[in-house]
Amino acid sequence: MLGTLKRILVGKPLANEQLAHERIPKRTALAVFSSDALSSVAYATEAILIALMFANREALGLATPIAAGITLLLIIVSFSYTQTINAYPNGGGSYIVSRENLGTLPSLIAAVSLMTSYILTVAVSISAGVTAITSALPELDQHRTAIALILIALLSLVNLRGLKESGALFAVPTYLFIVSMFAMILVGLYRYSTGTLIPAPPPEIVHAEFNQTLGWFLILRAFASGCTALTGIEAISDGVQAFKQPQARNAATTLTIMAVILSLMFIGITILASLYNVVPDGAAEPETVNSQLARAIFGGSSVFYYIIQAATMMILILASNTAYADFPRLSYFLAIDRFLPRQFAQRGDRLVFSNGVLFLGIVSAILVVAFNAREQALLPLYALGVFAAFTLSQYGMVQRWRRLKTAGWIRNMTINAVGASITALVFVVIAVTKFNQGAWSVLLIIPVVVFLLYQIRTHYLDVANQLSLAEAAAPVALRRHTVVVLVSGVHRGVIPALQYGLSLTNDNIRALYIDLDASSTAKMKEKWTQWGSGVELEILPSPYRSLIRPIREYLHGIESRYHDDVVTVVLPEFIPNRWWQNFLHNQTALAIKTMLLFSKNVVVVSVPYHLDK
Amino acid sequence: MLGTLKRILVGKPLANEQLAHERIPKRTALAVFSSDALSSVAYATEAILIALMFANREALGLATPIAAGITLLLIIVSFSYTQTINAYPNGGGSYIVSRENLGTLPSLIAAVSLMTSYILTVAVSISAGVTAITSALPELDQHRTAIALILIALLSLVNLRGLKESGALFAVPTYLFIVSMFAMILVGLYRYSTGTLIPAPPPEIVHAEFNQTLGWFLILRAFASGCTALTGIEAISDGVQAFKQPQARNAATTLTIMAVILSLMFIGITILASLYNVVPDGAAEPETVNSQLARAIFGGSSVFYYIIQAATMMILILASNTAYADFPRLSYFLAIDRFLPRQFAQRGDRLVFSNGVLFLGIVSAILVVAFNAREQALLPLYALGVFAAFTLSQYGMVQRWRRLKTAGWIRNMTINAVGASITALVFVVIAVTKFNQGAWSVLLIIPVVVFLLYQIRTHYLDVANQLSLAEAAAPVALRRHTVVVLVSGVHRGVIPALQYGLSLTNDNIRALYIDLDASSTAKMKEKWTQWGSGVELEILPSPYRSLIRPIREYLHGIESRYHDDVVTVVLPEFIPNRWWQNFLHNQTALAIKTMLLFSKNVVVVSVPYHLDK
Repeated sequence: MLGTLKRILVGKPLANEQLAHERIPKRTALAVFSSDALSSVAYATEAILIALMFANREALGLATPIAAGITLLLIIVSFSYTQTINAYPNGGGSYIVSRENLGTLPSLIAAVSLMTSYILTVAVSISAGVTAITSALPELDQHRTAIALILIALLSLVNLRGLKESGALFAVPTYLFIVSMFAMILVGLYRYSTGTLIPAPPPEIVHAEFNQTLGWFLILRAFASGCTALTGIEAISDGVQAFKQPQARNAATTLTIMAVILSLMFIGITILASLYNVVPDGAAEPETVNSQLARAIFGGSSVFYYIIQAATMMILILASNTAYADFPRLSYFLAIDRFLPRQFAQRGDRLVFSNGVLFLGIVSAILVVAFNAREQALLPLYALGVFAAFTLSQYGMVQRWRRLKTAGWIRNMTINAVGASITALVFVVIAVTKFNQGAWSVLLIIPVVVFLLYQIRTHYLDVANQLSLAEAAAPVALRRHTVVVLVSGVHRGVIPALQYGLSLTNDNIRALYIDLDASSTAKMKEKWTQWGSGVELEILPSPYRSLIRPIREYLHGIESRYHDDVVTVVLPEFIPNRWWQNFLHNQTALAIKTMLLFSKNVVVVSVPYHLDK
Repeated sequence: MLGTLKRILVGKPLANEQLAHERIPKRTALAVFSSDALSSVAYATEAILIALMFANREALGLATPIAAGITLLLIIVSFSYTQTINAYPNGGGSYIVSRENLGTLPSLIAAVSLMTSYILTVAVSISAGVTAITSALPELDQHRTAIALILIALLSLVNLRGLKESGALFAVPTYLFIVSMFAMILVGLYRYSTGTLIPAPPPEIVHAEFNQTLGWFLILRAFASGCTALTGIEAISDGVQAFKQPQARNAATTLTIMAVILSLMFIGITILASLYNVVPDGAAEPETVNSQLARAIFGGSSVFYYIIQAATMMILILASNTAYADFPRLSYFLAIDRFLPRQFAQRGDRLVFSNGVLFLGIVSAILVVAFNAREQALLPLYALGVFAAFTLSQYGMVQRWRRLKTAGWIRNMTINAVGASITALVFVVIAVTKFNQGAWSVLLIIPVVVFLLYQIRTHYLDVANQLSLAEAAAPVALRRHTVVVLVSGVHRGVIPALQYGLSLTNDNIRALYIDLDASSTAKMKEKWTQWGSGVELEILPSPYRSLIRPIREYLHGIESRYHDDVVTVVLPEFIPNRWWQNFLHNQTALAIKTMLLFSKNVVVVSVPYHLDK
């Protein structure tokens, strides 16, 4: 029954040889790998404005210079990453790069940072996608968590089925988003300069908690908030393999194009927000800054407004989907290296790493519920992991140049060193300025999870050592069986078990019965003379009504008597015809089997007896 | 670890002979058996007033005549039940009486009615107990569901440990409640008659949904609401065994005393509510009618007020505890008769029917959550089951007199017939007037559960027939084994399994390996020549990466080749040292064992290999 449900939802199993690799041209690759990075313009400007609102109205004017600073950072990091692309044409994720150049601990920190940021990519992007919907349709705001959970469930399902990264699927929403954002920016600037749209007066900021003094801390916090614009720019360096030849050059070109588009959109939207005096909506059903802009520029009932909101929602869903590709792949690498349970390394029926997909879906759903699908509340947790991974990856590149000393290594090393230093500095800024807003939890989780990963690896190594045949002696043949048949009464289910036991040994066999009440025991004895095939019946008392304890003690007794043989416990099990009938029977056989698995030197034999109805 | 937790919470297991029976005197028995019945005065008057409030202010004057009618009903039913006590000195619950005199179907209807009303006893009494607390401390109202759940958890735990129905434990709160209620009634009447307490003016009833025409329907609904006062009066007839000799006479006397006390308290409180113009509080944090009365009569900050609220809460908790004694006992009877899963017939470590206790706790907790621990919202579901059981029990007595024709049978039969007819009529009144308020759900659940009980019994009879040896042939000895050792690699865990397989047969054995990837398979083949003890290794392809499917198909092939022997599948299992380590390994062995249990003619042998760390 469960099998049928799974078949319908997930689809038929695929054979190993159906695992396919596709090579895609630059224009498609831009769509596939950039949705995560580009979509961050849906919330990054708003995050800066929210941080500045804690000061005063004039502080909002700082948004554009801060966005310019972040754009500079973006260009430096992108430039630094083009070198990773050239150095790792097979895909240079932060885990791979830092494992190769920095060692195990840094690579695990990078891996855990990435895992937290992939989880947050899903939670943030889906929540922001929902806000894009509810900005246009505020009456849906009360159902925002439910909508977000449905989207996560659908994404998980699609990825369990295995999504071909098909060009068209990604290209349409991504290019639609890019075109509509640029259209908004250009029309907005045009209407402002020609005076056909008069901005609303600057808003009064009345919130009691506001009016903090504008100092370096607030400015840095606004900067840190805006750094979420950089999330996702590492995606291309992970996926160089998917590009057409010459891979590295195509990938680097695509990264550059993406950085330019992202910079222009981000700066453009921030300037527009300043010009039009748009501030984040503090209402119970908030409208995004982008939605307010689009509404002002195109009119809230125009078709353009709805296209912009729909394109925003779609690119944000695509951005989450990127995490669905990256997280399972990263957890696969970690599982192969034995830092994660091996279940993460198995391909499911549809050749995807199903357990990674499910884990990502469940954890991001928990985050969405905990934060009521409000992306601005989730953002303080987000950028930290991303910048930790940036720093480790680029510092790994520095070490690589120093080691390999290839042509031009000093120049290359300098570029990466500048990138690493700046991202490290930004990491510290985010950690300090966002600490109280939730960044502390990420700073706590990363070392705890790294510790767990080490524990997991230790366990796997212990098991491998214990199972190793390196120092094993030659196997010794077993001499004789001591057979114990457990019987709960005399019925058809017991007969085959008894015959099975007799086929193992003729002399060293006994049946074991637990005396739970006197009248049943008397009946049992009487019937045994007829059906017992001459096997001796031992009856154990059980004053505490436990079946497990007397059996364990009895077996312990046998075990200490004979030393060189094997004790075989034969367990008759009758198997109901339908699964729900199991609830009507004690799961005694299961309990006994579980207990015996943990008893040393005992082998358990299940002899099933199948019921027909 | 779980075992230790259970030991701490539930206590050490008790031996069978520690099952004790206690005989208690009348004054203690009154406390033990009457808490359920007496505690209903905590909500019954209020229920009448709530129903009347749907009409108008004048309608509230009908509360006293309605309460008088209910008191009459109470006297008739009690009188009728004294006959059951005499006829069934070993305890005459509705299920027993109707099974003996009316047949299976009526007895099951009685049983299910009782089960629903026991569950509701817990939900209603605990909720009413919480309201008694929150009437005194309104700031706790927001935590009412949590408080109710904690109380249910504590009651369940106490009953899992096994509560001796110790006299003192019950006597103190019960007598405190009786004394404080009578004190409130007498002082209230005295102050009214002497004019030292002027009642508040009659309240304005402003609710829009009110102002319905006062007709027979509303009056009957108010009557039906008040019938919750009768819940619990059957308890003494269930527990005659616990009385001192002469049992029947002592029990009947106790029942009469209880009926008199209950009648006086119920009528007294209803009269007081009318005199003082107290109406149910429609506020968000409602105060009970009794609390309003006590506050008016003694003053809200007096110690008497707090004693009354505390005594009310305690007797309500004792009332729930009665259900914890009755429900598991009834489900035990049903399980013995095979209408419920046999797990309900087993005594747990502490000699109590633990599964019944847990089931009652869980279901009543669900009800409490669903109804936010508001007893007045639960009451419409409550009386229906109680009156169905009353009717069937008394009608059973009618049939009994007709069959046995003992001395005075016509008089006795008439008494029970009058009782049965009246309770049947009240059942119809409740079903009709409360239908829309939730009684429909009880009318739906009773037949559905009765149907399920029949299905359960059919299954048990089917199993008994299929396991019966009545027509079984003499057992046939097994001739030879076909042994298949499943191997996932060559390691220490495999060696003992292989030796075990070789001890079963020397010639008809093979090892089975599933080819999941080519390189592991090549390594496997190489190592097998050294460690395989000469056993043939068969390698099965698995293009869909499934372990289960190729094994199942292979075994199916073997099975169809040989017909007269047994196929033994030997499964090496390595057992981690700590429970959490199981999460780091595929539960492949468990999955394979489960699959093989459902394959016919296959016997599974688990050969465990224990890891040390």
